[in-house]
Amino acid sequence: MRGRRKVENPDTARRILSAAEKHFAAQGVEGARTDEIAAAAHANKAMLYYYFGSKRRLHRAVLENLFSQLRTGVYAKVQATGPATQRLRAFILGYFDFLATHPNYPRLVQREAMGKTRNFDWIVRQYLRPVHRRLVRTIDEGVASGEIRGVNPDHTAFTIMGMITSYFAAAPILSEVAGRNLLAPGAIQERKRAVLDFIDHSLTTKTVRSP
Amino acid sequence: MRGRRKVENPDTARRILSAAEKHFAAQGVEGARTDEIAAAAHANKAMLYYYFGSKRRLHRAVLENLFSQLRTGVYAKVQATGPATQRLRAFILGYFDFLATHPNYPRLVQREAMGKTRNFDWIVRQYLRPVHRRLVRTIDEGVASGEIRGVNPDHTAFTIMGMITSYFAAAPILSEVAGRNLLAPGAIQERKRAVLDFIDHSLTTKTVRSP
Repeated sequence: MRGRRKVENPDTARRILSAAEKHFAAQGVEGARTDEIAAAAHANKAMLYYYFGSKRRLHRAVLENLFSQLRTGVYAKVQATGPATQRLRAFILGYFDFLATHPNYPRLVQREAMGKTRNFDWIVRQYLRPVHRRLVRTIDEGVASGEIRGVNPDHTAFTIMGMITSYFAAAPILSEVAGRNLLAPGAIQERKRAVLDFIDHSLTTKTVRSP
Repeated sequence: MRGRRKVENPDTARRILSAAEKHFAAQGVEGARTDEIAAAAHANKAMLYYYFGSKRRLHRAVLENLFSQLRTGVYAKVQATGPATQRLRAFILGYFDFLATHPNYPRLVQREAMGKTRNFDWIVRQYLRPVHRRLVRTIDEGVASGEIRGVNPDHTAFTIMGMITSYFAAAPILSEVAGRNLLAPGAIQERKRAVLDFIDHSLTTKTVRSP
């Protein structure tokens, strides 16, 4: 039903969703105010309720929108076949690029995780667990084919996701620590190279390592 | 002056500090209530204000207590001399063990970072930046001595801290994802081995790598 309504003026619904993402990331669900979200979206509060029903459902729509983009972004670049190290690299780049272009994502997920909300069950079931399993399977296949040395695939997956997520999640702090803006385009490119280099040297057997 | 007061009954002050750490981590400064903190510490609210002055100052005392333990924990194990890779390993183990034994730490720091509080300036200046610089210097020295290959020291430091911090910060989520308790003693030992193995293979030149 909400789907049908969105057809009436999808631009307005999209603007509300986008403004809500920023406000929920900055202030949390409790702190964010629907009138401020509506104003930031150049819409009125009645439109927000018309499209999304309630603040809770708007918040859920924001999370679903982000997580489905995450899944698409990560999977889109990964071919079903080919060398495991190539698919691993595509996975890493997909996840990295998603985080680099979705600055609200780490904060929204941290808020859910800290609050242990009911949202968390479906996020784990529908998104985080399938993404983790895909990564673990790719690592397993690389070990089996001899491209990747014999590592613990679960922990290797946590490490790969963690070294990417933590950079973007902590970028405001790390920028203070390092004394430069770590979200500047040049810094993000530098980070991408460093991540690929670190993983490549740690995991791949010498025969397949890129020069 | 607060120092003199603590001498009167340091156990009470310590219990209040410990209870406050848990409550601030779980609920944030706004959400936590001083009467609940006092009750959890088997003290009364008057004692809490007598020792710490206000909720804000109690929160600051909690952070200072944790960060000074972090600095001590990380630095205590690191010798001033010796091979850089040995000092790097000691640093990593110090940071890892600190996080493994201080479960409230990641959540408290995330809350500060998300809220961009005034606390953050002194945390960066007194603790995070010195720790980061120490790690960068150790990596630089390892590169200079030929023990570590030529990596970007800033990003390598972010990666090392990030792969440890993110595991403990996200352990409740990752446990759901993996279907087992990742903070169980065996899992923590497994994580420690995986972290050291990942870093060792990525950074050290073959001649110094432990078998």
